[in-house]
Amino acid sequence: MIKVAAVAPVPQVPAVDFATEKIMSTFEVKAYPELWRSLDMDVERFDKARQMLGDAYTQSFLSQQNRPDGMVYFDDMIAELHGGRIKELMAAKAEGHPVVGTFCVYIPEELVLAAGGICIGLCGGSQGSIPDAEKTLPRNICPMVKSAYGFKAGRICSYFQVADFLYGETTCDAKKKTWELLDRLIPTHVMEIPQCKNPQSIALWQEEVKAFKVKMEETTGKEITEADLAAAIKVMNDKRRALQRLNNLRHHNPAPISGKDGLLIEQIAFYDDPVRFTEKLHALCDELDQRVENQVSVQAQNSARVMIAGSPMALPNWKVHNLVEGAGAVIVNEESCVGTRYFKDLIDESVTGMDNMLAALTDRYKEIDCSCFTPNNERIDQVVKEFRDSGAHGIINYSLQFCHTYNIEEVRIREACEQEGIPYLSLESDYSQEDVGQMQTRIEAFLEQLTD
Amino acid sequence: MIKVAAVAPVPQVPAVDFATEKIMSTFEVKAYPELWRSLDMDVERFDKARQMLGDAYTQSFLSQQNRPDGMVYFDDMIAELHGGRIKELMAAKAEGHPVVGTFCVYIPEELVLAAGGICIGLCGGSQGSIPDAEKTLPRNICPMVKSAYGFKAGRICSYFQVADFLYGETTCDAKKKTWELLDRLIPTHVMEIPQCKNPQSIALWQEEVKAFKVKMEETTGKEITEADLAAAIKVMNDKRRALQRLNNLRHHNPAPISGKDGLLIEQIAFYDDPVRFTEKLHALCDELDQRVENQVSVQAQNSARVMIAGSPMALPNWKVHNLVEGAGAVIVNEESCVGTRYFKDLIDESVTGMDNMLAALTDRYKEIDCSCFTPNNERIDQVVKEFRDSGAHGIINYSLQFCHTYNIEEVRIREACEQEGIPYLSLESDYSQEDVGQMQTRIEAFLEQLTD
Repeated sequence: MIKVAAVAPVPQVPAVDFATEKIMSTFEVKAYPELWRSLDMDVERFDKARQMLGDAYTQSFLSQQNRPDGMVYFDDMIAELHGGRIKELMAAKAEGHPVVGTFCVYIPEELVLAAGGICIGLCGGSQGSIPDAEKTLPRNICPMVKSAYGFKAGRICSYFQVADFLYGETTCDAKKKTWELLDRLIPTHVMEIPQCKNPQSIALWQEEVKAFKVKMEETTGKEITEADLAAAIKVMNDKRRALQRLNNLRHHNPAPISGKDGLLIEQIAFYDDPVRFTEKLHALCDELDQRVENQVSVQAQNSARVMIAGSPMALPNWKVHNLVEGAGAVIVNEESCVGTRYFKDLIDESVTGMDNMLAALTDRYKEIDCSCFTPNNERIDQVVKEFRDSGAHGIINYSLQFCHTYNIEEVRIREACEQEGIPYLSLESDYSQEDVGQMQTRIEAFLEQLTD
Repeated sequence: MIKVAAVAPVPQVPAVDFATEKIMSTFEVKAYPELWRSLDMDVERFDKARQMLGDAYTQSFLSQQNRPDGMVYFDDMIAELHGGRIKELMAAKAEGHPVVGTFCVYIPEELVLAAGGICIGLCGGSQGSIPDAEKTLPRNICPMVKSAYGFKAGRICSYFQVADFLYGETTCDAKKKTWELLDRLIPTHVMEIPQCKNPQSIALWQEEVKAFKVKMEETTGKEITEADLAAAIKVMNDKRRALQRLNNLRHHNPAPISGKDGLLIEQIAFYDDPVRFTEKLHALCDELDQRVENQVSVQAQNSARVMIAGSPMALPNWKVHNLVEGAGAVIVNEESCVGTRYFKDLIDESVTGMDNMLAALTDRYKEIDCSCFTPNNERIDQVVKEFRDSGAHGIINYSLQFCHTYNIEEVRIREACEQEGIPYLSLESDYSQEDVGQMQTRIEAFLEQLTD
């Protein structure tokens, strides 16, 4: 049984009796038709999506050789993603803990937690919901935005259905304008993320954070105290430290865990209870420490080592990882929002007084080097730094199709790699299977270059 | 001879001896190879572009029947676009008047004028420069952004070459990230345009305007006085009033001037001296007043009347106007940045004191309802209002390809038209000729519906 190890002020959520047996080929994402019906979902359609997710998971993850035992917990999370975990969230809601959905790392989660709320990621990584979106949205926009909108429009994502409201932001044109349409389906609070990092832009961000604190306090009817915020900062920093630990372990050669499993954990980070997630991730890392000591690996010592940079890969977008690791290489780092950008920076825990604490919080968030900022020189440096730290042999730049900010910033990433002599491949893709053959050919040619 | 009727503080620019004969089929954009060489242009390539522009102009504009005589001035402006006008700008520069290039209506031009500078549009409306851009930029971004970048990269636009610096802004992802690359070719000052219109966002914009005032003062070494700013506000308001007058005249049925000529004047507004332009536009409007009185028109009284809404059409993007008016309809209004969004709002001239004047200025700019804002309800209302005011029979929504903000806002424009019973057609296009046949078919079908 998985224990929920929440500390105040994080809501005490009743633990759900997840299956704990090691997942075999009988793996499936568990069906909860009554639960889904109570959430006004399109149960028939969602049930098909559930089966497809289970099949894809079996193929991508359970087929791996030599996986760490600690992955059982994360396998269970996928099995219970739209069941056990949703029951936890519904129980929490019943006890007055609001659920806030988002798909951006620029949300100050600490304020959600401090107010007794729960912050969760939204579905947005699947081709299945895109036809629902294209009934309304133009085709030529980011697949993540279309997929997310389609999940809500088609009522085929339990997270969209369980959320009390969405936290939207202005990080890209497609999301910014789509919130306006999504708000008609579910209440959406939009925060303006600045586009520059000069003093007047940061002042705007600080005001937006204060407004969000008020929003959370109004939602829960409870004023956030310094103690609440300090505890929430601790919870989130602990989670970030656990993810940093995993990332450092992945940098060992040979890698003690696959890139696919690394990405999966980074994806689950957006759905799981933060305290339990941290505990389980440390348990896995303890095992990986042993593997490092014993040189136990998922791949041969001489395998090509690849780092990914670019657009986020939302669950269940495993396309590039499947192709790279299917070709015998290992991915050792994701410079992405579903990756290092989510956890590389901590909030100063030594600060006291609400104003100072909010300033420390905003300081941490303004370190995020999303391509939405201009200029964004620090990201170029960060990519090179992560390449060096990770011991990768080359970088694959990944852009979601029509993702303008990452697509254009790719020019500068490419130039930096040329300058530093870093082997480099740029991929632009959507969620369809149409380009898989062509991508495979390009990836295999790139990997050959790395192992020459 | 065209007289330059500038008033202080707008720089007194020596008048160039533009040809004043009525343009015939011998029309050409005049060649100034020595001037272009002195601006470090690729003269051979630019000369071909010049010839193509002349041919396109002859075909689109000089072939029209029953044009107002007052169009001679604007024909001359095109003939001298890369010659006489550039000589004026070079003479002004030699006298210490900096030239600021931009392609956004969110630039506070008053501050450029008040500092003794000149504000000009940049080239960005042609397919010819796009291959230059695609050597660097991704293909899947807005043709206007690619075209503009390509004009600078290929050194084939005299305006990019004559500008002292560019005024960039953050209105869309593609522009925002492209300025970073353009800044390596020509100095670019980027202002953060907010994305929302709440108090903290407007505070950011006010700080940006103050910073731009300092930037202009540093550039000219001259402090902007209240008198300077008042004079500049007057010049710009006068120009806006002249454009409003033209727009109101176009709303008359039958229309006294073609939509093509109306668009052309709106395009030239970004290149010409504002005082001279205002004077010449009023002279044309005097003639149009007579035409209205005498029911002289460019089209039959029963022609279909169309309003355009959406993305800006930069010179020489005349594609949609050519197709619509070629099919016998007349375009009577452009709800666009190259259109009403540039001139619909005035700055309060009664305000005194620098702080109050800057506040009045920022108040006017925040009325701009660019699709970059969220939410942007006032634009939906504005489109319907302009439709009613213009006496149009239907709306064509025009989006530049990959222009996410207009593309997504199109959903709401379409819904508003359905609700109001306004005949509606949505077009998405680039600068190529590839879709002309398909567009023509769709436009003709739409126009038939209007005249049924």
